[in-house]
Amino acid sequence: MQIDINLGERSYAVAIKTLEGLALKDKKLLIVTNHTISSLHLEYLLKRLEAKELHIATIKDGEEYKNMETIEEILRVAFNAKLDRGSIFVAFGGGVIGDMTGFASGIFQRGVDFIQIPTTLLSMVDASVGGKTGINNEFGKNLVGLFHQPLSVHIDTFFLGTLPEREFGAGVAEIIKMAVTFDSKFFIWLEKNRLDNRENIEYAIKKCVEIKAKVVEMDEKESGIRAALNYGHTFGHAIENLTNYKTYLHGEAVSIGISMANRLASKLGNITKEEEERILHLLLSYNLPITFDIQDREEFYEKFFLDKKSKDSKITFVLPKSIGGVEFRDDISKEAVLEIL
Amino acid sequence: MQIDINLGERSYAVAIKTLEGLALKDKKLLIVTNHTISSLHLEYLLKRLEAKELHIATIKDGEEYKNMETIEEILRVAFNAKLDRGSIFVAFGGGVIGDMTGFASGIFQRGVDFIQIPTTLLSMVDASVGGKTGINNEFGKNLVGLFHQPLSVHIDTFFLGTLPEREFGAGVAEIIKMAVTFDSKFFIWLEKNRLDNRENIEYAIKKCVEIKAKVVEMDEKESGIRAALNYGHTFGHAIENLTNYKTYLHGEAVSIGISMANRLASKLGNITKEEEERILHLLLSYNLPITFDIQDREEFYEKFFLDKKSKDSKITFVLPKSIGGVEFRDDISKEAVLEIL
Repeated sequence: MQIDINLGERSYAVAIKTLEGLALKDKKLLIVTNHTISSLHLEYLLKRLEAKELHIATIKDGEEYKNMETIEEILRVAFNAKLDRGSIFVAFGGGVIGDMTGFASGIFQRGVDFIQIPTTLLSMVDASVGGKTGINNEFGKNLVGLFHQPLSVHIDTFFLGTLPEREFGAGVAEIIKMAVTFDSKFFIWLEKNRLDNRENIEYAIKKCVEIKAKVVEMDEKESGIRAALNYGHTFGHAIENLTNYKTYLHGEAVSIGISMANRLASKLGNITKEEEERILHLLLSYNLPITFDIQDREEFYEKFFLDKKSKDSKITFVLPKSIGGVEFRDDISKEAVLEIL
Repeated sequence: MQIDINLGERSYAVAIKTLEGLALKDKKLLIVTNHTISSLHLEYLLKRLEAKELHIATIKDGEEYKNMETIEEILRVAFNAKLDRGSIFVAFGGGVIGDMTGFASGIFQRGVDFIQIPTTLLSMVDASVGGKTGINNEFGKNLVGLFHQPLSVHIDTFFLGTLPEREFGAGVAEIIKMAVTFDSKFFIWLEKNRLDNRENIEYAIKKCVEIKAKVVEMDEKESGIRAALNYGHTFGHAIENLTNYKTYLHGEAVSIGISMANRLASKLGNITKEEEERILHLLLSYNLPITFDIQDREEFYEKFFLDKKSKDSKITFVLPKSIGGVEFRDDISKEAVLEIL
């Protein structure tokens, strides 16, 4: 199946199906991947790819390498391969690979095209679609980057066969995020159906990509509704930052973040205790963490100001409004927040 | 006077006049400048600027610092100042400052606005208009960057009062470039009028901005005609690269590059010997260099492949077609090029 994303001057397709012959015969390609994905799946990919020239940049695996140094490494491979303005970068991996390939391609010779071939559930349901690219720095997550839309996105669930269980769970956290904020029916479907077979997984991916496509079409540059996709992320980013991106996978931090946002939402009457329980229950059923031991609540609170949604020293919280709805609140007192932390 | 640049979804104004009250009262600003400009003109600027908050990033002066390290330095100031997505960067300096401020603002939190306040002739007539931003690296000039259009450009020739003569000449090289490729009448005007008074200088700036505006409106992302503005630059970049960006100012390297391109154009019958002489004469009248002692012609030739206009191992040369016209040629044999070097 295929979902189209229409963004005014350009549109692109997200295909959810077994990867077939990607013919880019007159193009020079740079595949960006890491050792883990490369050893597992590069052969599978290369069999399905035709290009004029093929180059590979293999970068270190992990969120802690999502930085400017690695971007410069990718660019160095591109320059050494004498790629030109008509060349295409291919992101072959999870969200980290996708974000960095998108960023590197966006600044290589002032911008070339890139293709997303996500290999993790998280990047299939969320990160690979929508054109957000970037890196982390000492100040926080994804604070440096670009909006740079891919040429196309190819989702082949074959790759999930080798995905570690924890990484799979991390992807489920983003699926639950989408359902809670935008689609109550999908949430109920998730309560009734387990993501333990290809059919259900592909259905969930399709639902998420459809939601994401609609949101990005309405608000590509995140000046409004798109920020709803950051539900759980304001808290999650603080957790990742405090643990140096090492303790939790991104989706796991989001899961804890969702639980914290819900506690605030429940306190403010946005969701009922029962709805809060249902969301927690769904997260727990995929072995996702929902608590974090905060050492210093003031320090935790300070981290919010590095969030890109913070403006004029106000923190904007994304809170669920019942299940299937969402609300932005920038008027919550520091005391109210510290209380639920 | 004011020239508007219309680029589909957005347009912006280039004002050529004494800087007046720039009221940005509800904005946080980051002025990016260097020590030289800061000590000469920061006071002048600050008197004419109103903002909610004002921060200053003072970077090292010179093309050799136009790199990723300096970009990260600018970003660090922005993060430490807790700038947000509504903040504005202000480029206050020459082309190097403009290119880096544009790039840094384009990737800060996935892109914020920036304003150009050029202080050199070169950046007034060329670099500050059109949205090309970027940095150099070990592979060449401006190879990493973005197309990121400014919010507005404010050209105040007051700043030229302190511009060293060599830097002024470097700006004139770009003015001559514009005239040779796009406007024979303007070229004749330049032959008859000296750029030694404010009236003539402002007239020349206006002509150049008008030419640049038209070209950028036709071809913002340089897939065609905009590359004509690189006349002299293919050779010029090679010279700058071989001399580590230290021996020549950018405009001086362009002047030598123009002379080399003309030798090729003359050999191919694109311009007459007399036209070649007239251009050389104009360059020399502003004390611009027109020759470069090439140590190794093969090495020099190799440098062309790092030019962003090189595609599929073909080098595209921008050559004048008489005075006031331009032609792209990607069919010139290596021998023919080596011969004129």
